[in-house]
Amino acid sequence: MAQRININADLGESYGAFQIGDDSALLDVVASANIACGMHGGDPSVMRRTVAEAAARGVSIGAHPGLNDLWGFGRRRIPVVAEEIEYLVAYQIGALRAIAAYEDEPVTHVKLHGALYGMANEDLALAEAVARAIRVSGPELIHLAPPGGALERASRALGLPIAREGFVDRSYEACGALTPRTAPGAVIREPEIAVERALRLACEGVVIARTGEKVALEVDSLCIHGDEPGASEIARAVRSALESAGIEVATLPRMLM
Amino acid sequence: MAQRININADLGESYGAFQIGDDSALLDVVASANIACGMHGGDPSVMRRTVAEAAARGVSIGAHPGLNDLWGFGRRRIPVVAEEIEYLVAYQIGALRAIAAYEDEPVTHVKLHGALYGMANEDLALAEAVARAIRVSGPELIHLAPPGGALERASRALGLPIAREGFVDRSYEACGALTPRTAPGAVIREPEIAVERALRLACEGVVIARTGEKVALEVDSLCIHGDEPGASEIARAVRSALESAGIEVATLPRMLM
Amino acid sequence: MAQRININADLGESYGAFQIGDDSALLDVVASANIACGMHGGDPSVMRRTVAEAAARGVSIGAHPGLNDLWGFGRRRIPVVAEEIEYLVAYQIGALRAIAAYEDEPVTHVKLHGALYGMANEDLALAEAVARAIRVSGPELIHLAPPGGALERASRALGLPIAREGFVDRSYEACGALTPRTAPGAVIREPEIAVERALRLACEGVVIARTGEKVALEVDSLCIHGDEPGASEIARAVRSALESAGIEVATLPRMLM
Amino acid sequence: MAQRININADLGESYGAFQIGDDSALLDVVASANIACGMHGGDPSVMRRTVAEAAARGVSIGAHPGLNDLWGFGRRRIPVVAEEIEYLVAYQIGALRAIAAYEDEPVTHVKLHGALYGMANEDLALAEAVARAIRVSGPELIHLAPPGGALERASRALGLPIAREGFVDRSYEACGALTPRTAPGAVIREPEIAVERALRLACEGVVIARTGEKVALEVDSLCIHGDEPGASEIARAVRSALESAGIEVATLPRMLM
Repeated sequence: MAQRININADLGESYGAFQIGDDSALLDVVASANIACGMHGGDPSVMRRTVAEAAARGVSIGAHPGLNDLWGFGRRRIPVVAEEIEYLVAYQIGALRAIAAYEDEPVTHVKLHGALYGMANEDLALAEAVARAIRVSGPELIHLAPPGGALERASRALGLPIAREGFVDRSYEACGALTPRTAPGAVIREPEIAVERALRLACEGVVIARTGEKVALEVDSLCIHGDEPGASEIARAVRSALESAGIEVATLPRMLM
Repeated sequence: MAQRININADLGESYGAFQIGDDSALLDVVASANIACGMHGGDPSVMRRTVAEAAARGVSIGAHPGLNDLWGFGRRRIPVVAEEIEYLVAYQIGALRAIAAYEDEPVTHVKLHGALYGMANEDLALAEAVARAIRVSGPELIHLAPPGGALERASRALGLPIAREGFVDRSYEACGALTPRTAPGAVIREPEIAVERALRLACEGVVIARTGEKVALEVDSLCIHGDEPGASEIARAVRSALESAGIEVATLPRMLM
Repeated sequence: MAQRININADLGESYGAFQIGDDSALLDVVASANIACGMHGGDPSVMRRTVAEAAARGVSIGAHPGLNDLWGFGRRRIPVVAEEIEYLVAYQIGALRAIAAYEDEPVTHVKLHGALYGMANEDLALAEAVARAIRVSGPELIHLAPPGGALERASRALGLPIAREGFVDRSYEACGALTPRTAPGAVIREPEIAVERALRLACEGVVIARTGEKVALEVDSLCIHGDEPGASEIARAVRSALESAGIEVATLPRMLM
Repeated sequence: MAQRININADLGESYGAFQIGDDSALLDVVASANIACGMHGGDPSVMRRTVAEAAARGVSIGAHPGLNDLWGFGRRRIPVVAEEIEYLVAYQIGALRAIAAYEDEPVTHVKLHGALYGMANEDLALAEAVARAIRVSGPELIHLAPPGGALERASRALGLPIAREGFVDRSYEACGALTPRTAPGAVIREPEIAVERALRLACEGVVIARTGEKVALEVDSLCIHGDEPGASEIARAVRSALESAGIEVATLPRMLM
């Protein structure tokens, strides 16, 4: 049984006057923040503000690189070549590092966003490009990725530190894959169900699939989506339930110690 | 009389399929490259390619941050607040650093682009914001700036290494300011005139103003615009004339040794 | 005393996943909608949805062209030349017309957005460019503009139908100009004050300036900003107060009949 | 044997300072211009200039709508839903119409760009969305499309006027499809080969496939890509050869008379 677990969320995805999500509320709950880097969302000023708010709360900072698709919020699976993705990811990590320097905070992890996360986890060439981008940017960077896919495999092959994540607000298929976002029931909006799933993931390393099967899913971190309505309520309920169960909510670097 | 001088040019300003300038030709001539960082031009793939080509020729690498105005190519004086500019500049330096890491090349200088260059050189609050961004990103970074303006002043106040540049292809006013780009005769397109001005700047530290006055302009570097037609021809003529005159064309770090 | 008045608001300013304002609530209150056209906000799908919702409520449709500055939400006074603005405005009117055709709805008015509204109202060359763009797009289009500025003057010179607007949620200076948005007290957030100002504008054609003076401001329309928190509450209070006072809230075409 | 044929090219794809293609040279050769509408390339000022140059030469004007993917120049097959595409296409047609009004020129045809052209020609739902967008924008608009695909089928089903095009600078497969752009030999750069293919297409309605087969391809128009180096040379050679063979080069409206 796990003594500790990480909670992460995607943050800093607003763009200029265009607001996304309720970052302040989520930052009170998570232990690690995946901060958008200006491609699918985020801009230098939003990044600066998010880094400051994360640092003030002891939340560890990660880069959250996405496809260069603001209109699609990085959720459209745009066909890409591995090389493009590699530099696109490195660019975004470097940009966040420069901003994080304002708080003397290291960027300690990288988690891909949206369509890039999904595509690269299914395509080893893309996953290897991502892993190379992370290694060049800093071999100490923790790659926060789903368990068992191309991303984990490519990162392990390069010796990168890996943290695996599960979703408390998304349904899973029996094979361990996420139910596609467009399918009915893919997104879980009831805090009590999210809490139950969080405890199962943290304590037993399992999730109940959409079709009822118990699926093994060993994870170091629980992800909560910041842009869904009710995200912060779910986050608070999950954190409170974990702590009540005696489970420490830890930053990603502490998880891998 | 100067024994050595730097030649710099703005490079890597293409964006996806949209080509700007003749980078390969210019890279054969300059000693330092100001590489666009994705805001007014440039993208991660273009940056990667430009860094590789610069490294292969021993050309030192600098960040060339601009306003976030792709359509206006960073040439429109968009009203900004100092804080925004500070993070915008830091973001771009960090992004280039991550890309330069692929060649194990340090980013050794920063030069602002277009409207940002002009605005910040006239407004001390903006100039101070830029200087802070450079210092946070790395106090060893050389700030390549025009002599005698707010940028030099703000950077000296923070103790940043400074290199001053003159333009061989732009006309000057008697006060030492550039003739506005929209004025007739502002851009010099004849290689022989550019050569003459380059030699004067390098050997005597003076430039002849549009209205005939001899103006003192002590510079460490000569800038050649990469996006004008004929830019590479001017660049070749200038370099060849300097070398014939026994003047070494040196990278910026070497200039400040 | 006015028997009728128009209420307008800026709508359809969301962009992809990035939400701005509470359009549905405002559409229940206004009589005319200024629909963003994809430059400072808005996209073809958002435009389509907004046109449908306006048509379903009998709200008349106008184009709301802005500067091509998504990040700045069209609020930064970017230096422009008149010619650029002319085609930029025509482009946006044409784009909305094509979308409005889906509901068999005519575009009946044009109102500039943000910085473009302010800049063009102070600069006759820009105002004339805007007026030409409207006339080329359709001489029957009503230009919704502030009273007494360059926009009204340029449009009258071309014989365009004009409707003048006042703001119920913005403070005015004694000269009749809006208090700059960055000044304290510039934005009015209390519904009761907005209501009082709305009634004064509609019934007496006056507004009380920030410094206490009674300023004549003859208007055909009252504008309510859609992107402020509380905008829909203010809008509802204003409409209800006007109707209680026996004033008809009419579309812009009906106002000019 | 054809007495007349149209030549078309994609034009006006520059964006601000970013130049694409040699429009002036191509405009001297083509009879119909497909003008980019600001999504994959083009901007209101470029559109205005291109419309004026086309009008001055008697070249008929068409909208050239693309995906909203400037960085990818509209060439990436971004997954889209039919509804989005429908409004995206209508928006662009409307925008061009507003600009064409400056020359009192009608927009007489629509031709999709890049990935959208390919995707919609293979997917009937997308093709039907495009056909609806064209019909709503003006049922007299000629849809310029490849022969035999979903685009032709969907447009015929709605009764839209259709013109079919072949490519003189692209290789074909035996099935009549274009050889993918990434395959070797996909792009033809030798003017003499392009000329030979142009004459075959115009006189016999056939093309020789990459693998040697004679493929029937009845076309009303020959397309020349404007963004390839040497495009204008190919265009001139093709036009001259057609005219020498006694074939009239006609605008699209004239082709369908």
